[in-house]
Amino acid sequence: MSGSERIIMGIDPGTNILGFGIIKIVSGKPEYVDMGVVDLRKENDHFVKLRRITRDVGALIEHYSPDDMAVEAPFYGVNPQVMLKLGRAQGAAISAALMRDIPVFEYAPRKVKIAITGNGAASKEQLSLMLERTLGMKMNSRYLDASDALGIAMCHYYQLVNPLIDRDTSTSWEKFVKNNPQRVK
Amino acid sequence: MSGSERIIMGIDPGTNILGFGIIKIVSGKPEYVDMGVVDLRKENDHFVKLRRITRDVGALIEHYSPDDMAVEAPFYGVNPQVMLKLGRAQGAAISAALMRDIPVFEYAPRKVKIAITGNGAASKEQLSLMLERTLGMKMNSRYLDASDALGIAMCHYYQLVNPLIDRDTSTSWEKFVKNNPQRVK
Repeated sequence: MSGSERIIMGIDPGTNILGFGIIKIVSGKPEYVDMGVVDLRKENDHFVKLRRITRDVGALIEHYSPDDMAVEAPFYGVNPQVMLKLGRAQGAAISAALMRDIPVFEYAPRKVKIAITGNGAASKEQLSLMLERTLGMKMNSRYLDASDALGIAMCHYYQLVNPLIDRDTSTSWEKFVKNNPQRVK
Repeated sequence: MSGSERIIMGIDPGTNILGFGIIKIVSGKPEYVDMGVVDLRKENDHFVKLRRITRDVGALIEHYSPDDMAVEAPFYGVNPQVMLKLGRAQGAAISAALMRDIPVFEYAPRKVKIAITGNGAASKEQLSLMLERTLGMKMNSRYLDASDALGIAMCHYYQLVNPLIDRDTSTSWEKFVKNNPQRVK
């Protein structure tokens, strides 16, 4: 990774709340940019939700021009039907990035917690607290649902600066470049 | 439904093969237009697959200008992880339609089989045979993977011409219009 600026967008696309967190890497250090949520609970139609996800994530991408997108890759779900709906929501958000040639990376929830707090079983509160300390900011309680998304963005930052850590459990930047030279600008 | 022409695109977006089937309703009768597959097995990266799905489905939409898209809604999966990946593939295909303001409808596999063959436990061969008879065409054996997609398009046709049948197990056109007046041109 060069010392130039790089913007990372973390996305936590659920079927009720979509959280996003934006950080900027400046000379190798992470800086907080923004975080927020898209509330999908008022939309009662599944496809109207997916349409909002595609459009709103697309609008966020146009606004922040991220270099990378990072999403969560849950490995266990309550039931297959819930996972299918969650997968569709993720797919709608992911394709908003891919169609703009922005590479997407995924991290297991446990890996995100380890990267931020050192503890794979950390609580949401512990994660939020560590993010506030590391990024020198204070979270607006309205946007707590976006703390996971900010954590995913930070996890990708740690992966970029030290891809040797735990590289088998995630797609590293090197592996991405090697497999997809045409996608790296 | 008016007697004017309406184009329906059925999509069966798996993580290895994406099948599509296109029919045209002319004066209330279905006509075969095209079917085919996008082979994703050579892509070893999950996100490269999703990118191809978004782009190729987008290209198909630009080419055929469908009025509606119909997808399968599986209710049982082998395991949650498989369902998440399948959901992402479906989400990528669905959002290619939604971002172009094309409404999307979903049908359970059993409902598709009942609509085409009258038998919810029909085999793939029975489904293909009935589609060939109804549409007066002969399937290319290379595109058998697309027969499910053609079946989904035909299921949506049957739903449009007779939305009273089994309306609770699927989103009917009336329900769609009622809930989303702004999306109906």
